Amino acid sequence: MRSGRARYSDPTTHTLRRTTLHRRDLRPDDVAVRVDYCGVCHSDLHAVHAHKSDTDGILVPGHEFTGTVSEVGSAVTDFVPGDPVAVGNIVDSCGTCPMCQAGQENFCRDFPTLTYGGSDRQDSATTLGGYSREHLVREKFAYHLPAGLDAAAAAPLLCAGVTVWEPLRALEVGPGSTVAVAGLGGLGHLAVKLAVALGATTSVISRTPDKAGEAHGLGADRFVVSTDAGQLEAVRDRFDVVIDTISAPHDLTPYLRMVALDGTLSHLGHLGPVTVDTIDLLIGRKNLSSAGSGGRPSTAALLRFCAEHGITADIELLPSSQVNTALDRLARNDVRHRFVLDMSDLD
Amino acid sequence: MRSGRARYSDPTTHTLRRTTLHRRDLRPDDVAVRVDYCGVCHSDLHAVHAHKSDTDGILVPGHEFTGTVSEVGSAVTDFVPGDPVAVGNIVDSCGTCPMCQAGQENFCRDFPTLTYGGSDRQDSATTLGGYSREHLVREKFAYHLPAGLDAAAAAPLLCAGVTVWEPLRALEVGPGSTVAVAGLGGLGHLAVKLAVALGATTSVISRTPDKAGEAHGLGADRFVVSTDAGQLEAVRDRFDVVIDTISAPHDLTPYLRMVALDGTLSHLGHLGPVTVDTIDLLIGRKNLSSAGSGGRPSTAALLRFCAEHGITADIELLPSSQVNTALDRLARNDVRHRFVLDMSDLD
Repeated sequence: MRSGRARYSDPTTHTLRRTTLHRRDLRPDDVAVRVDYCGVCHSDLHAVHAHKSDTDGILVPGHEFTGTVSEVGSAVTDFVPGDPVAVGNIVDSCGTCPMCQAGQENFCRDFPTLTYGGSDRQDSATTLGGYSREHLVREKFAYHLPAGLDAAAAAPLLCAGVTVWEPLRALEVGPGSTVAVAGLGGLGHLAVKLAVALGATTSVISRTPDKAGEAHGLGADRFVVSTDAGQLEAVRDRFDVVIDTISAPHDLTPYLRMVALDGTLSHLGHLGPVTVDTIDLLIGRKNLSSAGSGGRPSTAALLRFCAEHGITADIELLPSSQVNTALDRLARNDVRHRFVLDMSDLD
Repeated sequence: MRSGRARYSDPTTHTLRRTTLHRRDLRPDDVAVRVDYCGVCHSDLHAVHAHKSDTDGILVPGHEFTGTVSEVGSAVTDFVPGDPVAVGNIVDSCGTCPMCQAGQENFCRDFPTLTYGGSDRQDSATTLGGYSREHLVREKFAYHLPAGLDAAAAAPLLCAGVTVWEPLRALEVGPGSTVAVAGLGGLGHLAVKLAVALGATTSVISRTPDKAGEAHGLGADRFVVSTDAGQLEAVRDRFDVVIDTISAPHDLTPYLRMVALDGTLSHLGHLGPVTVDTIDLLIGRKNLSSAGSGGRPSTAALLRFCAEHGITADIELLPSSQVNTALDRLARNDVRHRFVLDMSDLD
């Protein structure tokens, strides 16, 4: 067994504490990673608050991280120690179902093994995430971090980034497309950067008028205040693609109304059950969809695209000792736009 | 004023009675039509049952009919008396909004003028439908009925047909596509014929095992019994396009599960509010959409396509004097697959 330092969730206080934990011995297809930077995702916050006891396994959050390969298993061919590396929210999948075969391991029929809180497919151990200094991951689910990308600001690309990238690509966003991004947070600001870089005419929808300047700074052509009925009417039937990054429950109707003929409203993340009136889909033949996370091919493609276009997340970098501050502030949406933890203080 | 014979709805009995009614004088852009055949749509049944009094205007149903041009207005250039002609469920629209400009008059922002129960855009008179021997329609909303199509069996193409045609075309169904059609009634049987003729590998989903033979006869490759969990599991994530023609309220989840990665479930007709769990859209990045009726370009294209491929509806032809029988049987789904009324008994 290998030991390493990590931040784990204390289920009695719902705060993270420093610990030393054990990981499996290196398997032939494992890559050992020294974790340098790990993004703080809303999912981490939910997991910490939902975590009731360690009887279901210790909780070490973190599923968007970058680091350096420290050791490789005997069968690893694509990485050598010293390689910059990135890991996202999936560390394994069945590999044989139609979704895996299509490169959509995030939709694996046998459920993908999540980077933390999952169950290892070989030894059934609870998977432990990136709020740690050492990590082990199957080579197949490690990605080369391209040169030129800031390793801290690139970490959120692995979850937030690919979550917005997959629908943009699946919906064939490019020059000539009109895209609106609802919500300018961790996902939203990356969606704007990526849509602009893909060549789309991009708008931002927000209830916060103060964000107009930032939206334009990110390359958006238009800013729409979602509480202004006149502004909403002006964008009726306007956008080929609306990427809705708002995580709180909300009425989808105003966003469907912005969608152009045969266009798509893609909601990101899991809202649970939603009710829509089919007339709002029928008039204009509009599509409602959803997306989340990403498969291996699109994750690799995203990293290449971001390197070409110089795209990373806008982050606040904190030492990992301040993880509880980060989670508290994230719970209040007090972040612009993603916290990233510097794990070097665990040395 | 012009007078003509028709079947109108008696709001006290919810049955249709023979009458003589008045229509406007011929306008310069009007085409007068001798109605030969009119299809009986589910909408007609709903309208008759919802019709409470004549104070809102007399109700003459019928919005999918074929006939012969009997007279043309002074400005009409595209029709001459004697032309075979077809009319659908829209007789006017604003013509200037983005949807009209895009050839989607069915989604006119100022609401299209429906063929019956609508309000004429010039004189505000209640529009009167095709359960009549004479009809007047703006040239723009009359379609040439191609030679070679049986005029009676072609009538349902104008509503049922274009309602299934538009989503099939919008979703780019063609060779290589996999399509499933849920429900084998008036809309469903036309959806199967059209999908097969477009080159798609086509399946039928029905709760009635007895319909398997008919489905194969229409060209379907596969028949899936919707009450058989094993058969449903076998088609999980399978179809690029699922056309759901089931008009009664029902859970969309089993149909979403059949949709392939990036595919679409298109429900036809107006179900009202529906609830779906976004996880069923997220896993496989699936789209939920809806469609109904059709614009002028696609209606004309459908008629050309049907003439090329010899496609019409499977109908039961009744004299218009039996319209009440037709409506009663339609209410019990006792029709295979569309009633068409022969209006010549009104002479």
